[in-house]
Amino acid sequence: MPDKALRIRRAGSREHPGAPPRRPVMLAIAGDSAAGKTTMTRGLVEALGPDRCVSLCTDDYHRYDREERKELPFTALHPDCNHLEIMEQHLQLLATGAPVLKPVYDHGTGQLVRPELVEPAEFVIVEGLFPLWSKLSRACFDVTVFLDPPEDIRRGWKVQRDTSKRGYTEEKVLAELERREPESEAYIRPQRAVADLVVRFAPIESRDDPEGTPLSATLTMRPTIDHPDLGEVLAPGLSRAMHLKLERDPDGRPAETLHVHGYAPREESIAVEKAIWTALGAPDTETPECLGRLGGSSGDARSEPLAIAQLLLLYHLTDAAR
Amino acid sequence: MPDKALRIRRAGSREHPGAPPRRPVMLAIAGDSAAGKTTMTRGLVEALGPDRCVSLCTDDYHRYDREERKELPFTALHPDCNHLEIMEQHLQLLATGAPVLKPVYDHGTGQLVRPELVEPAEFVIVEGLFPLWSKLSRACFDVTVFLDPPEDIRRGWKVQRDTSKRGYTEEKVLAELERREPESEAYIRPQRAVADLVVRFAPIESRDDPEGTPLSATLTMRPTIDHPDLGEVLAPGLSRAMHLKLERDPDGRPAETLHVHGYAPREESIAVEKAIWTALGAPDTETPECLGRLGGSSGDARSEPLAIAQLLLLYHLTDAAR
Repeated sequence: MPDKALRIRRAGSREHPGAPPRRPVMLAIAGDSAAGKTTMTRGLVEALGPDRCVSLCTDDYHRYDREERKELPFTALHPDCNHLEIMEQHLQLLATGAPVLKPVYDHGTGQLVRPELVEPAEFVIVEGLFPLWSKLSRACFDVTVFLDPPEDIRRGWKVQRDTSKRGYTEEKVLAELERREPESEAYIRPQRAVADLVVRFAPIESRDDPEGTPLSATLTMRPTIDHPDLGEVLAPGLSRAMHLKLERDPDGRPAETLHVHGYAPREESIAVEKAIWTALGAPDTETPECLGRLGGSSGDARSEPLAIAQLLLLYHLTDAAR
Repeated sequence: MPDKALRIRRAGSREHPGAPPRRPVMLAIAGDSAAGKTTMTRGLVEALGPDRCVSLCTDDYHRYDREERKELPFTALHPDCNHLEIMEQHLQLLATGAPVLKPVYDHGTGQLVRPELVEPAEFVIVEGLFPLWSKLSRACFDVTVFLDPPEDIRRGWKVQRDTSKRGYTEEKVLAELERREPESEAYIRPQRAVADLVVRFAPIESRDDPEGTPLSATLTMRPTIDHPDLGEVLAPGLSRAMHLKLERDPDGRPAETLHVHGYAPREESIAVEKAIWTALGAPDTETPECLGRLGGSSGDARSEPLAIAQLLLLYHLTDAAR
């Protein structure tokens, strides 16, 4: 019935007079559970301003609640445990400027509750386990990131969060991580290979930094999008805090890698941030306070490598909006 | 960003190899609260078979739950009280063969709860207050019906249902009807003018039928779709049960009107049903038992005028599927 499709389209354009809604710039932040997606997202939303930016989490597309999942032969990391077809549909709708009635999964109670209306703003940030799952979902994004902390670090983050915020015991969290591992490998980690940027927060193995040294970050910038030219920013005097390398990425393909050192003196990292902030065409102001904030159980603690990763993402979002 | 739209479309068609899903035939049954929509729908779903037909109710698109509505200056009959834009979006998706994650309003508790997946079957029947609300929503349907009982009859039906099934007292229901009247007039009844078929169950005013005589039905068939030629079926011997007239519809436009008399002897109505059933190209079997069943508080009571209205709709659904 091509006539029906045509009628729908024509009626649609007559029904809403005036210019069509602007299509938002969309950023995907993918990664395993407790990989740091929410922390990364929070700073970006605050920097862009909540009136220009909405964020959503694809965990809301869980097909079963916590009680039902107990009876299932797979975990929440299995595609069959999620409404991925509906997630793809909603991503397409948002990407073309339409609102969606998004399902809501309550992490506190483990229940699926009343859905909520999400209207696309100028920027839409989608974080979760599966945003890069399919070609169709990836086609909805302007920029895609995969967060890839080493497993031992992620395990620590997950125990910390799930015991403090989601009412699980440490044993439960560790047992669940064990149970999820094959599905992490099969369904979550493969998304790393298709992201424009891979961000890995980790200590630098070759160094023996004292306790409390912030994690460093390795940002793998794939030539799938146009990254800013950081050559000029990285003047020799700043190379202690940060340097660029041409390397093979963990998936074997050539990429530019930006190493941001956690052990660098704070003033130096801040100088780099300012230099990027200005180089990115941002107004001549301080870099936003909210960038680099760890929040959650870390209180007001800051990570300069996180701030630099967020600045790079802000660059891409602003660039895509132009 | 036309590139984004194109990428989504192309990725979409590669992502799902094989033939595109068949687009369903869609029927809208619109009408005010307690106008008989569910009774009409139930018989059709059963006649078509639940494997070939899904039905949904647009009450599920309520924007506020019962508690929240108490604070609002309008009732559930106001467009602002419903996610009509999302309803339109879901109707478009279903009409083009896509599944939707439909919100769910629990009439028992008055709460908005976990949404449910609806996948379009061969036939999709959409009943509710607003399915014919906009040009865009109407474009999704192959056949549209408006149920238009006289207000005193509908009031009786609503009191009966809401006190027995939805936990309201009779005073509450009557007060609510009063409060809703201006919005019924402004937003619900105007849909009558755009339906292909208007069905009115009512006693015939010129007669003084004894208590218990089934309601008669007047079916206004607008020339917006191709109605079956009933001339041959309505042979003179059957004209007591049913007759056709060329009349102006209640909105002043020319239409064919089918009068189905509730006082006609049952054998005669059944003969008419059989005649239509056969004339409509249906297999040489009995008309389905489920047609005409009133259900609910009426138990196993049947209405031959209802069965005839449902038969006509079955004709249109089958015709649109061809």
